[in-house]
Order: sequence, then structure tokens, then C-alpha cells
Amino acid sequence: MNNNAIKPWLRSYDAALEAFIKTDVLVCGYGGAGASAALEARRAGADVVVLERSSGGGGSTQMSSCEMYLGGSGGTALQQEIGLSDSTENMSAYLTEALGEHGDPERIRLYTEGAASHFEWVESLGVPYKRKAIFDRVVVPHTDESLLFTGNERAWPFTEVAEPIPRGHVPSHEGDQGGRIFMKALMEACVAAGVRVQVDSQVQAVVQDDSGRVRGVMAKIDGKERFIEATRGVVLSTGGFVMNRKMLEKHCAHTLPFGEPYGNQWDMGDGIQMGMAAGGNIINMDQCFISMAFYPPASLTYGILINNKGQRYINEDAYLARLGHYSGQQDKAEIYMLVQNEDFDLPYYLSPPPPLAATGDSIEEVEREAGLPEGALQATVDYYNKYAAQGQDPLFHKAKDWLKPLTNGPFALISFKPEDVKYPLGNDNGWLMFTLGGLETRPTGEVLTPSGQAIPGLYAAGRTTAGLPRTSKGYASGMSVGDATFFGRMAGRQAAANT
Amino acid sequence: MNNNAIKPWLRSYDAALEAFIKTDVLVCGYGGAGASAALEARRAGADVVVLERSSGGGGSTQMSSCEMYLGGSGGTALQQEIGLSDSTENMSAYLTEALGEHGDPERIRLYTEGAASHFEWVESLGVPYKRKAIFDRVVVPHTDESLLFTGNERAWPFTEVAEPIPRGHVPSHEGDQGGRIFMKALMEACVAAGVRVQVDSQVQAVVQDDSGRVRGVMAKIDGKERFIEATRGVVLSTGGFVMNRKMLEKHCAHTLPFGEPYGNQWDMGDGIQMGMAAGGNIINMDQCFISMAFYPPASLTYGILINNKGQRYINEDAYLARLGHYSGQQDKAEIYMLVQNEDFDLPYYLSPPPPLAATGDSIEEVEREAGLPEGALQATVDYYNKYAAQGQDPLFHKAKDWLKPLTNGPFALISFKPEDVKYPLGNDNGWLMFTLGGLETRPTGEVLTPSGQAIPGLYAAGRTTAGLPRTSKGYASGMSVGDATFFGRMAGRQAAANT
Repeated sequence: MNNNAIKPWLRSYDAALEAFIKTDVLVCGYGGAGASAALEARRAGADVVVLERSSGGGGSTQMSSCEMYLGGSGGTALQQEIGLSDSTENMSAYLTEALGEHGDPERIRLYTEGAASHFEWVESLGVPYKRKAIFDRVVVPHTDESLLFTGNERAWPFTEVAEPIPRGHVPSHEGDQGGRIFMKALMEACVAAGVRVQVDSQVQAVVQDDSGRVRGVMAKIDGKERFIEATRGVVLSTGGFVMNRKMLEKHCAHTLPFGEPYGNQWDMGDGIQMGMAAGGNIINMDQCFISMAFYPPASLTYGILINNKGQRYINEDAYLARLGHYSGQQDKAEIYMLVQNEDFDLPYYLSPPPPLAATGDSIEEVEREAGLPEGALQATVDYYNKYAAQGQDPLFHKAKDWLKPLTNGPFALISFKPEDVKYPLGNDNGWLMFTLGGLETRPTGEVLTPSGQAIPGLYAAGRTTAGLPRTSKGYASGMSVGDATFFGRMAGRQAAANT
Repeated sequence: MNNNAIKPWLRSYDAALEAFIKTDVLVCGYGGAGASAALEARRAGADVVVLERSSGGGGSTQMSSCEMYLGGSGGTALQQEIGLSDSTENMSAYLTEALGEHGDPERIRLYTEGAASHFEWVESLGVPYKRKAIFDRVVVPHTDESLLFTGNERAWPFTEVAEPIPRGHVPSHEGDQGGRIFMKALMEACVAAGVRVQVDSQVQAVVQDDSGRVRGVMAKIDGKERFIEATRGVVLSTGGFVMNRKMLEKHCAHTLPFGEPYGNQWDMGDGIQMGMAAGGNIINMDQCFISMAFYPPASLTYGILINNKGQRYINEDAYLARLGHYSGQQDKAEIYMLVQNEDFDLPYYLSPPPPLAATGDSIEEVEREAGLPEGALQATVDYYNKYAAQGQDPLFHKAKDWLKPLTNGPFALISFKPEDVKYPLGNDNGWLMFTLGGLETRPTGEVLTPSGQAIPGLYAAGRTTAGLPRTSKGYASGMSVGDATFFGRMAGRQAAANT
């Protein structure tokens, strides 16, 4: 269909089209999902070309800690070698609770069954993982440990359904360098395997023939629009759309009041739009990872999070993405952390640090200074203290270890309102977010139409798709890179087999 | 593109296609939006054919009370003749607050400027509107009044931004017959104007030529698949997708735990899927109207709504759709209404009525019997009573008229948990819901691609689109029929002008 005017992301295949590059499998986007797909497709015997829009690969995976949520099958090599055993059933029970009604049972099954061997694959690339775990409440280890809890395992309601076990696997390094270490190793493996990488190449449209089969893409290379032909398949792995303001306004309007886009500059939704132009469906477009991070410092977990009515709304020992989900539901996203003197500290990674909405020797004083409804915070603290003294949290079930009556003033009320949360990223203020919606695919990466048919020759992985992680509510640290690399590999193999 | 295998909702136009029916404007779906589009297209001089899947028209509009949210421009004839004046600015301020970040400013502007004359159009069809208003807290008048408050006007935060004025316009009749009265008048006007209506005709695919222009549809008529050609345009008005379980699971997963689909059996998303097959974008797909209706009886508004932590979470005098939005965010959607003896009553339209989770002479007794966290409800009621006695609600700002200390036992705790809310519809239990997402269109009805281009010859209106109402949070009763008929007319005129 030559309707380029209304489908700029689509070109119709015409036998006369001259191929600038011809390959078996074409991968669009050289981040964690794309590089994993490329390597597996190549190892499956296919000729593979990767087109990357920027001047080098890495994508958003390279910006991350490269934490991967892995376990099951008795335990990953890392888990086992430090004496931890892990079961696929336990991991599955956890993920099923975490993803709730958003979960895709088939993806959960495949992932929990294959995660341990996926770790072997990652390690085989030469990525260093020290046989050492850190059990503190951290988001990323800044020492060289390689295993940590991903955030919710020891928190209610997850403790009701699964045995807590650390499943966060990160490359060993002093400081947060996981993404660079992993992508360097993965991209070197791609090149060594014979994957051809073409950087500074902007894919502009997917090429589809009259039968609906995808035959390649049009890409701008050295200023010229070229046809890159793929005989077996095209893998779309260009990231999510968190940097595309228009798409955010259309699909994630509810997150705009508090979300701060986090990703690489090319997370513009190109792959999603190309997939749609070829007939693909989009799902879960409203869901985002939202990080309301008050920890580290872990000591703040002894405090209580309240909304502008002085009410608590969540167990404070939950993971930052779960905190983000519930914090975003509070009136105007006006939330605060009340902490007593002995536990006071501020997040070092926010600069300037979040301001104090109030301080006082009594809760009443704090309440008045913060302009909260008279008596509301006092009632909340009275109730919290009464049960905390007995090691209980009847309302939100914060774990016993974090329960301590708030009685030793002075007290501080730290504001975590979006406008007060400033990451040194040079953008707006807010809680870090990235998108969890995209093309609807089978776990194999096959892109589906709204009616459920697979589009021949079209595959996708990573945040270009709605993958394993589909909600911030139960998001586990390491889910996105774990999903992108695990299902990216699957998409690469599927495309290579499409002869 | 003859890729019917992957796009069953799309057929490519082939000059050889023989037209079974040929017309200027083809309208798919004979509900409120479709009939309004058909009548206006016909009055604009176009030959118009309507294809309706069922054996008669009416759609979901016919099942409704046909309340329309109208006002502005000094007031509708009805508002003015009972001595009320209404301003476009006031109506716009209200809708802007109501729709929040989901709102489309251009739709709000066009609607608020044109709503009063839209009422003249509706009345000119012969729909009876009595010059009489009911000011009680009702959802639909069961006496013959034609004007009422739509639910949130007198509730916080709307009272902060706009002057309360009733804008709910319903046909005058004893009992809830508005939808039938309106659709009968509208369909008679269509026939009188020369609109050709073909019932029992299932549209199966949209027909698009190689330039991307829509040329008609394929429809099953008398068991045969026929080509219905439209020289000016096709209007998709087949309703939303609330009856399509698969689409709900993909796009509205979060509503499944508490939502009960409400609509006509053909709200299957056909029009949305056809529009997508032709290249259209879908937006706002996760948003639904959710009705957590505890009133009437209005007297329950003197009570307080609490979650399973014994916390209040909203001002109880808000509209049922706003109550639904916030109730759905509560843990497991476990919500209850605490009321004292003098205000006790049960919703007559639920059968059996919602059960009492507990009763007691004291709040403590109720709390214990209901198994709520010890002391939690007592703390909530103590705080509420203290300020209610002063005519204040510092936390949620329920209007003074509904504030009364809960001190006169015995007390009842009515369960409004989804599983306890039973509508006599023969379906599952839950809070009534319908979808607010669909094709992205211009206010004129032109269907847009993800890149923002209009698809030539393709229009849509009503719940097949993301229209004026886009969130339950600020939904006003009458928004959906108001939107469907107002913008349906606009789509019909736009299609007729596409010569």
C-alpha cells in the first residue's frame, strides 16, 4: 500500500527496490534487547545486521545497573555457590503476585523456567559476577557484591505468598557500572560472532509486501534513504517511548503530574510506531515504572510515608516502584516522610536533597508547620506508635524489623512531592519513570495484530513491547533488563528460524 | 494490501469490486453516535446508508437514561426557562477540572460553546423536556423532571473552581425511559430525512484503496459478504469494547477485579479494530467509567466510606463515577459504608441488596464484627465526628450539608465490595463499567494515525473513539451520550463535506 502520506512508518515492498544491505535477520536498535537478539540469531546460523540510530550501541540498558531478576531451577550458579537454593515454583509464585492482573502467565512460566540458564549465558559473555551477596536495603550495591534483594521480597504482601530470596544479579564492580560492563561484553560477543553493526543509521520505515510479510526496512544511512532487506525477519528493539512527550500525553497522561522521563534520548517509540504501521497491536500503554525512591538511606524506612491528609498509604519497606505506584495515587501526589531524629538522613543521589516540609519537637508542631489538617498526623502517629511498640503494623504490615514508635524528637517531615525531587539529570523534577507498554507480542517476539495474528517476518523485544514487567505496583528491580535480554534472545532465535 | 490473513478487518479496494449498495456516507452502527451522524450527513445533502448489526437500532444509548451534560452560552432553553443562567466559562472551568490531565482542550472548547444549541437540536427532534428541575441527590429522576445535577457539581474539589449549576438534561417521563424516547425520535427523524437503514448487517472489514483512502466496507447481509461503497466517507460508530473480554484483559486489566461490563451485546470493539486495520491509532484504552453507586438513597451520604484499613478515602458526596475511581484504588477494592441508624437505608436497584458486614451499638463493636484492624475505624470516626460537629471535613471536604457526627447507634457497615454488589443483569457481580478508550480522532471525527495524519474517508464517533469523557475520576453523568451525539453530528457533517 503506497499510502506513505498516512503511514510514514510503512513502505510497500516492490521487487524493484534495490537492497543497500541484504541479510537474513535485521535488528533495529542495539540496546540490551537488540544485541541479545542479534547474538542469538547469529549463533543460530543467520546472517545478522544491526542498525543503530546513535553513534554507538548500549541503549538504556547501558545507562542502567544491569540488574537482572534471576533465579529458580534450584538457583542460579551465583545463588547456589553462596549457599542459597531457589525454586521455580517460589519464583513463579512471587512474580504471579507481583504482576497481578497485568501478568502474562506464559511469559512468567518461560522466564522462571529459563532464568537460571539465562544467567549462565550472561556469565559466559565474560560479565563478572562475584559470589557475594549484600542483604541490606539498597537499590544498587556500591561495593562489589553481585547479588541483592530486588526490593519487595521481604515486604507484605509478597511475604504471604513466597519465601524471600535475593534474585537481583548485578555485574561485580565498585560503583554503579553494571550496564556499561554488560553491554561492552555483549557487543564484543556480537562482533566476534560476526554480527554486522551499522551505527548512525536511523530506521525510518518498515517494508511490508502485499501479503503482509515484512521484508526489511528503509533507513537513513550517510544522509541517504536505503532499503535494508531481511529475508528471515526484522526485530524491532528500539526501546520504549518515555522520551516522546506526545506519546506520553496520549497514553500516560496520569503519570505526567509526577513522572520524570528516564531513559536514553532515542526512547522515542519509533519501533512501536513501525510495528503499528505494519498492523501490530499496542497494549499496556498506560503503565509505567515509577520510582518513588526515599532509600537509601535505609534508616528512613523506620519513618512513615504520609499523604496530604496525614494518612499512611503503604508499608514503607516496599520497593521504590511499588512506592511510586501508590504515591502517585495520593491527592496531588503530595507525600511526605515523617522520621525521628535518630533515623534522620537524606538521599545522597538527589541534589539538592529533598527539603524539609517541617521540623518540630512534637508531632503537633510538625503537623502545624507543614499545614496538614489539624490533628490528622497526630492521630496517624498515635495509632502507628501504639502497635509499633508491639511490633505490629495492622494497617500496612511493614515488617517487624522496621517498626519503631516515633517518640524521640525532634522530628522531620521530608517532602517527596514531585517538584521537590531533583535528580541531577538536567530535566524536570519528579519521580523517575519509563514506559511498560508497547507492541503486543508472543513470548517468541512475534508481533501480533489486534485480532491475534502474527505478522510474518516481524518480531520485537524489550521496551518496544509489553513484556514481562507490566506494572509498577509489583515491579521487581532487574525485571526490565532481565526481560529485554531473555526475550530478546528468544526473538533472535525465532527470527533466525523463519527461513 | 491483500493481507487479509493478518488483517481480517481490512480489505484492499479493487475497481472490480461490485457494490451491493453505493452511497455518499456510510455509517456503521445505529446507536446515539451513528444515528446523529447519519441525520446530519443527510441534512447536509449526502445520500446516507446506515448498517446495523442487530435487528434494530438504539445501541447502548437506548439502554441509558439519555442524560446529556449540557449548558453554557447563557444557558440551554431548559435552564433559562426555569430561571437558571449558565456561562460557557463556568462550564469550561468545570470540565477542565473534571477531565484533568486526560482532557482534550479543543473538545472541551467546542462542546462548551455548542452544548446549548445541541439541546435545541435534540428538542427539535420532538424529545420531551419538561421545564422542571430536581435538586435532590439522585442519579436519574424517576418522576418527570428534565433537569438535574450530574453528580459532582456540589462536591469538592469542583466547588473550588466552578459555580454549581444543574446540567443534566433528561427526556421527561415517569421512570427511566430516556434512552428509548430519544432514540425513537432520532431514528424516526433519520428515516423521515431519507437515511437508508440496513439492519441485521454485520460490517466485517473496512475497504481501503492503495492511497489509503477508505472506500467503503465489506458487510455480511442475508448471509452473503457484500461490498458497500461510500464515495465520501465511512463513519465508525459501533460502540466501545466493554463486551469484548479479550480486549478488556489486554487494555483494562486493572478494572477486572471490580468492574462489571455494562453496555449492549455488540459493544465488541469492531469499529476500533477496523479503524486500527486502516492505520488508526488507539488512545486512552485503559480508562473506564466505573460506577460505585451507593446512592440513592441519598441519606447514606451522611455516612462515611472506608477501606479495609478503616480509613476514609474520598468525600462521600462525590458522583458515583468518582467514587468508583477512588474505590477501585483501595486494597482489594474492599470498601464499606458506615452509617448510623437514622440514615440507614439500602439501594433499591441492587438485588439482593448489599449485605451488612457488621452492625453494632458502638463503633468498636462494628469494627470487631467486621474484622477491621483494632482501633482503626474508631480513630477514623473520632476524627470525623470531632470536625463534623463543627461542620467541617478537613481531610476530604464533604459539603457541610452532609456532615453529621456518627454518634447515634446502632450502626451498620454496608459492604460495597464488588462481589457484594449485584445488579439484576444476569452477569457477574461488580461495579458497572464501560470503556472510555478507542480510536484517536480529531473533534471532527477524522481518524488519526499514530503519526497524526488523518485517514482519508474514515471517521468515528461515540465510544468507538476516545471522546470528551476520558476518565471516571471526573466523569459527569450525561457526558457520554452528550459526547456521542454532539461529536457524532460533527462527524456526519465532516463526512458529508468530503466530496
